[in-house]
Amino acid sequence: MNKMKRDRQFRPLPVPSVDVHGLFGDRQDAICDSTAETLLDRCVEAGMVRAIDTSKPSPGVVIPIQPWGGTTQMFWDSDLGKSIETVAYSLYRRPNPKLEARVDEIIDMYAKMQDEDGYLNAWFQRVQPGRRWTNLRDHHELYCAGHLIEGAVAYFQATGKRKLLDVMCRFADYMIKVFGSGEGQLRGYCGHEEIELALVKLARVTGQKKYLDLSKFFIDERGTEPHFFTEEAIRDGRDPASFIQKTYEYSQSHLPVREQKKVVGHAVRAMYLYSGMADVATEYNDDSLTTALETLWDDLTTKQMYVTGGIGPAASNEGFTDYYDLPNESAYAETCASVGLVFWASRMLGRSPNRRYADIMEQALYNGAMSGLSLDGKTFFYENPLESAGKHHRWVWHHCPCCPPNIARLLASIGSYMYAVADDEIVVHLYGESTARFDLDGAKIELSQRTRYPWDGAIRFELKADKPVRFALSLRIPEWADGSTLKVNGRALDLAPVMVDGYARIEREWRTGDHIDLDIPLAPRTLFANPLVRQDAGRTALMRGPLVYCVESTDNGEGLNRIVLEGKLSEAKTTEIAELRGAVALDVPVARDEADWGSALYRTSPPRIQRGTARFVPYAFWDNRAPGEMLVWVRAGELSGE
Amino acid sequence: MNKMKRDRQFRPLPVPSVDVHGLFGDRQDAICDSTAETLLDRCVEAGMVRAIDTSKPSPGVVIPIQPWGGTTQMFWDSDLGKSIETVAYSLYRRPNPKLEARVDEIIDMYAKMQDEDGYLNAWFQRVQPGRRWTNLRDHHELYCAGHLIEGAVAYFQATGKRKLLDVMCRFADYMIKVFGSGEGQLRGYCGHEEIELALVKLARVTGQKKYLDLSKFFIDERGTEPHFFTEEAIRDGRDPASFIQKTYEYSQSHLPVREQKKVVGHAVRAMYLYSGMADVATEYNDDSLTTALETLWDDLTTKQMYVTGGIGPAASNEGFTDYYDLPNESAYAETCASVGLVFWASRMLGRSPNRRYADIMEQALYNGAMSGLSLDGKTFFYENPLESAGKHHRWVWHHCPCCPPNIARLLASIGSYMYAVADDEIVVHLYGESTARFDLDGAKIELSQRTRYPWDGAIRFELKADKPVRFALSLRIPEWADGSTLKVNGRALDLAPVMVDGYARIEREWRTGDHIDLDIPLAPRTLFANPLVRQDAGRTALMRGPLVYCVESTDNGEGLNRIVLEGKLSEAKTTEIAELRGAVALDVPVARDEADWGSALYRTSPPRIQRGTARFVPYAFWDNRAPGEMLVWVRAGELSGE
Repeated sequence: MNKMKRDRQFRPLPVPSVDVHGLFGDRQDAICDSTAETLLDRCVEAGMVRAIDTSKPSPGVVIPIQPWGGTTQMFWDSDLGKSIETVAYSLYRRPNPKLEARVDEIIDMYAKMQDEDGYLNAWFQRVQPGRRWTNLRDHHELYCAGHLIEGAVAYFQATGKRKLLDVMCRFADYMIKVFGSGEGQLRGYCGHEEIELALVKLARVTGQKKYLDLSKFFIDERGTEPHFFTEEAIRDGRDPASFIQKTYEYSQSHLPVREQKKVVGHAVRAMYLYSGMADVATEYNDDSLTTALETLWDDLTTKQMYVTGGIGPAASNEGFTDYYDLPNESAYAETCASVGLVFWASRMLGRSPNRRYADIMEQALYNGAMSGLSLDGKTFFYENPLESAGKHHRWVWHHCPCCPPNIARLLASIGSYMYAVADDEIVVHLYGESTARFDLDGAKIELSQRTRYPWDGAIRFELKADKPVRFALSLRIPEWADGSTLKVNGRALDLAPVMVDGYARIEREWRTGDHIDLDIPLAPRTLFANPLVRQDAGRTALMRGPLVYCVESTDNGEGLNRIVLEGKLSEAKTTEIAELRGAVALDVPVARDEADWGSALYRTSPPRIQRGTARFVPYAFWDNRAPGEMLVWVRAGELSGE
Repeated sequence: MNKMKRDRQFRPLPVPSVDVHGLFGDRQDAICDSTAETLLDRCVEAGMVRAIDTSKPSPGVVIPIQPWGGTTQMFWDSDLGKSIETVAYSLYRRPNPKLEARVDEIIDMYAKMQDEDGYLNAWFQRVQPGRRWTNLRDHHELYCAGHLIEGAVAYFQATGKRKLLDVMCRFADYMIKVFGSGEGQLRGYCGHEEIELALVKLARVTGQKKYLDLSKFFIDERGTEPHFFTEEAIRDGRDPASFIQKTYEYSQSHLPVREQKKVVGHAVRAMYLYSGMADVATEYNDDSLTTALETLWDDLTTKQMYVTGGIGPAASNEGFTDYYDLPNESAYAETCASVGLVFWASRMLGRSPNRRYADIMEQALYNGAMSGLSLDGKTFFYENPLESAGKHHRWVWHHCPCCPPNIARLLASIGSYMYAVADDEIVVHLYGESTARFDLDGAKIELSQRTRYPWDGAIRFELKADKPVRFALSLRIPEWADGSTLKVNGRALDLAPVMVDGYARIEREWRTGDHIDLDIPLAPRTLFANPLVRQDAGRTALMRGPLVYCVESTDNGEGLNRIVLEGKLSEAKTTEIAELRGAVALDVPVARDEADWGSALYRTSPPRIQRGTARFVPYAFWDNRAPGEMLVWVRAGELSGE
């Protein structure tokens, strides 16, 4: 049945081609209502807009230089870039002339600030003009450029306005002169990956292969010897050994990328690098990159990933530590890192659909990433711990505000992660009320999902086509979805024969009026972690569909570690919580350690047990009601499996 | 039966009056063999001796000023003071002319360095001479003085040499001029408590009440308004608000000491303050101080103490956080803090014996404190976590080397914590092979313990007296020692009628040849933590006698959190481990999560269970063999107590 060759290229649908409703539509409305404007407001408050306003004096160093040798002020362009991208997506969904005008103004400033040679960077043009390209390891110049490119592409697609796109093309053209293996060129790359995937976007929208080639150059050069960061430091009069992060693992430049087998260092950097590698693998059909990525994927998802799709447990390097080291309360699990994992997973689908990637994409999206934005779209999480003693709360802004625009731009563009298209195939990776439009083989096709997913597992697909057309429609059947059923035009279809890499692949001539009913059972299930994860030993996590659940003290009182889940999930009751926008809560029978233990800190008799129920709510929605404790991995009650 | 009045004063026996053998004798031998000399060697290597050698130029700033506004170099005098104290105690046990000569040389340097007015401080005389007494909050001048006083007292008692004692009396006399409520005097006190308890020692050895009065002044002034630290900062041109530790809780100066009800801030500082308060309470029969201390004692021991007697869970303030917040793997639980808890507990026994204090003294001593010194006396722990994933190991030295001489001076002087004497009563607080000599009512008495405690609970006391003498002999019966029995000269004594505050009080005329047999059952027992301690929920700690036990991977393989203790302690077998100097290990039946789980990180079926045994060893002795994981709170297997 596997008729696919690998060398087809599956590309996500453009954002404007998908109308999203349901849960994601609600998140997008919050972004249109609040987040998009909030991001611009906060950028202004932080001084980011003044920093690029050449009609005024430079504000200089607003955020002092830190022990690592730079300041988060150096990334201000990236925050503006991601904010522009978020606004652009919000304009697809809901025109907003006021917001558009504010972005136009920012773009005008960038156009005015741009150097004659094409260079563009608020810090190195306005604060340290003599230091351009002197410290790629630490100073984020290409990272900033990448985010402005992504913003430019999105804004062009949303509004048809080319100004920022042209600015960024000029900058990229200048990069092509600066970077390369020719005489007088820098054989360098950015300490914080991002430019790689941005250049692929730029190439796709402009049709210019030169940008792809530059992306591939950055990827190919990374980690080769003699090491660029070492030589650069010496040239710049710095001691290469005095690097606060000590080793080049931090920026995944310790080895050539094709030789990397272990996911290491700063989590967001890693995800952006692998995303860029996957894009280049797709565009060049580069099996050597794909092979490396498959190894890295296994390494991450079988040894280093929280059940929420959170990654990077440590604050000290904002990244990875040891295998199976997944502390819950001190989890860093930056919102940006889970967003980055969604980016990477979606790009691993570029050469063929495979639920190995799409299941994790869904898991990271619905949990570790989506938790980063409050239900009202106004407050944010930077760290996403899986346990809180009551002091971890959403904040209005952060000294390093990378996460708010990152989760916002992901959710605002989620339609393009739901659907992908190749020459002869349409793939549905993610479910949710939506309508997607695409052209295939000369036909105009509209595919709608009618569903309350993820709250309910019944999904009806309705198809319209301006003429009958033959193609394969591939629908992901999540690995956890035991007992899923499928009907095509009312007739049950046996899944087993049509399953390809976890997708039900239905190839036929499709015409208007065709419909498919997919039913995915959403029975709650308990997960257990590999016994090598010491922090989860004797504990269990509750999931329903793609959603990880947690307990909060607002529902269950204080002392969440008193709760013991004994596995009686068949007695779980579902309730829709209006305060959580209709999210389905699960009320589950549990045992609890006694509350009236008395004043002793330790004693020889164990706590007495009380019976009751506990309410579990989706992890991503926690801390949207009364503040308090939260816990994902609750105690498991029995020595099962003997 | 309670014939005691509170206003008696129980004072510890002087160190030379007790010969210690058994476990503590072995620890003292390691100190004589290695630690005492090691401490001096390391002080020399660190530059501390050169810093006070006025025949050479000052080394200046060796350890740079840190963000808190000072450097650990400012405490070098304290490290020398504690090292001198350790050497002094080692000389009681084993004369060592070479070591004594090295200390004499250091003392000569201090005598030469001392200012004409009596002031003495390596940093403020040799590095920042103009800054004396300008920042008591941060700069540790009186703290350093206190440790030199303690060293001077011990060295005088050990060798009869008065030189350092005279130096420190001159310094203390100068302090009496500088500090006070008179015109032109400073109404201040040290940010790091220590001087208070040191002055009590100085008063006791010199018989000079003026030193007691100064100690009481420091205690009475602490935390009063207008706040000294605030006024001092303003006088010194510093912003009082720019204090890296933010609030005066850090140094227990947020309230007058008699109004303090919660144990807060830096753990070592707190313990030293309370120790000084307890001494002053004893010397002045000050019930207002005792009442405050009783409240603080309950606060610490029922809400903020690890089962090891470790205290102060957080690295950020080296101290206390929230009630019931006792993380195991990240526990700071500084060795010095547990040593300080022993100091405090022993001083709470100054007005009457009470096992409420002595039980905790024993618990902290045998676990959180003793863990700080390796069995060979050569390496040290600063932090004492209750769980390690395999990377926490004893070190040779530390940038802030406060702990090595602290645990060494405690163990080297442990005899004086074992026995205390009042006018008509002898108290045995701690058990262990030893002989104590004291004078009582004109008689010379020798009391010996013949025992292998803590490995075996049988203890025979043998008494010699140069004439028959009537007094009460009080023997602590630990709260955990259910079923203890007592025989006097072979005749069983019913314990209940003679118990006073947890001590068996035997008042009679004693004469040579009298003997007592105390038998303390040492059956292993499991402890459970209050359900509010989230980190210990569903877990249990194994104890035997005063010792907390742990599992190490060297005995049990990797993955210690796979171990589940199901409570079958009656089947536990004891084994003496030669490598651990005859320590008793416990081999206990346990369940274990399967080792062959496979590659998945998460799955819906729980781990299968395998049966076997696990070896538990005393916590204080961990990391003395092959390096690896360690765990105190193992998983508890059953929902008991229903």
